[in-house]
Amino acid sequence: MLPIISIVGASNSGKTTFLENLIPELASKGYRVGAVKHDAHGFEMDREGKDTWRLQRAGAEVIAISSPNRFASIRSTDGEISLEEIAARFFWTEDIVITEGFKRAHFPKIEVFRSAVEQNPICGPGDNLIALVSDDAKQAQVPIFSTSDFKGVADFIQTRYLKDRKRRGILVQLDGKQLPMKDFVEDFVLGGIKGMLASLRGWHKPRTVSIHFRLGDDD
Amino acid sequence: MLPIISIVGASNSGKTTFLENLIPELASKGYRVGAVKHDAHGFEMDREGKDTWRLQRAGAEVIAISSPNRFASIRSTDGEISLEEIAARFFWTEDIVITEGFKRAHFPKIEVFRSAVEQNPICGPGDNLIALVSDDAKQAQVPIFSTSDFKGVADFIQTRYLKDRKRRGILVQLDGKQLPMKDFVEDFVLGGIKGMLASLRGWHKPRTVSIHFRLGDDD
Repeated sequence: MLPIISIVGASNSGKTTFLENLIPELASKGYRVGAVKHDAHGFEMDREGKDTWRLQRAGAEVIAISSPNRFASIRSTDGEISLEEIAARFFWTEDIVITEGFKRAHFPKIEVFRSAVEQNPICGPGDNLIALVSDDAKQAQVPIFSTSDFKGVADFIQTRYLKDRKRRGILVQLDGKQLPMKDFVEDFVLGGIKGMLASLRGWHKPRTVSIHFRLGDDD
Repeated sequence: MLPIISIVGASNSGKTTFLENLIPELASKGYRVGAVKHDAHGFEMDREGKDTWRLQRAGAEVIAISSPNRFASIRSTDGEISLEEIAARFFWTEDIVITEGFKRAHFPKIEVFRSAVEQNPICGPGDNLIALVSDDAKQAQVPIFSTSDFKGVADFIQTRYLKDRKRRGILVQLDGKQLPMKDFVEDFVLGGIKGMLASLRGWHKPRTVSIHFRLGDDD
């Protein structure tokens, strides 16, 4: 459904700088962009003594902070949340998600490569590499863009992932894990659910629909 | 579905301290607790120059940071997200949500009141006040607990909102807004969707089910 593209590369290859310049190019084309940063080392978003820190220490599993123009949440987890789940849960109005890192996930990757940092690109066969961003890559099986060609990369992403993409699609998660479905099953389930809901009072044609339920022991 | 209780009171009445002590009492009863803090003035969760700050400044509407044991997201919004939507979107595994602030929302409220801070409680008739936490409240139409009786308040919340609560329930959101349904319609929709999904390969009995889809122009 939602296209997810990962920007990967060795440490200090310039991933964040590249992302910082790619995002405005995509936004200027009218797309709403979400970003996910992978942080293997954990991170500190609130500081000791702040209210959010106090509530988390007290045992709240999720802390949210709501203000008129920003909303934030912090969740304690047992292990990482998958990119599919992140995209479905947190990016409900976006058109595309760009990630920094997540080399091990199976999403299409663009590697930022500088030979001064690493001898060879970190992506190999099977890594789903779709392009290299580099000023000194010798050869590649994929398109190469210069490190300042943010517009070229944005055009490439648009052509490949944002034009003519399947507009429909349904994501069903059981305890956060995706239930895989073939296309015709997706159409059947989406049509069935939409048909049921559209018969209710209060239905209007929405852009997005989210449904959540819990099952009890006797279900 | 998910009970939401708001802790309200004047500035400096001791809301955060109360919450900080109430949460462990609820957690020790085996409930998973989520917390929401209202911040009328906006807030700063990341600092200038940090990667998340750079990505937001570049135009990403949502930034998420994923690590093995914590997950955070920051979203730019046009106006506040409703508590119902916050609860449905961000607290999918919790049993109860406790908020700090949100006096104007319609959820049940517990007011922390100190006469040294304010002459009278800030909640009046129609505010859905269910209890006062105070060492010097003269009289009230609702139960009064002392400011150190965290256990008493936790017991009160448990009896009133966590025991015998309806275990089933479905939340349907159109563009984030709840589609209201009567109980028998909820049962019908939940049963219909569950029946459809349970016939698919890959189904196993989950605790929670989330379904997301987008509709195109020609749907």
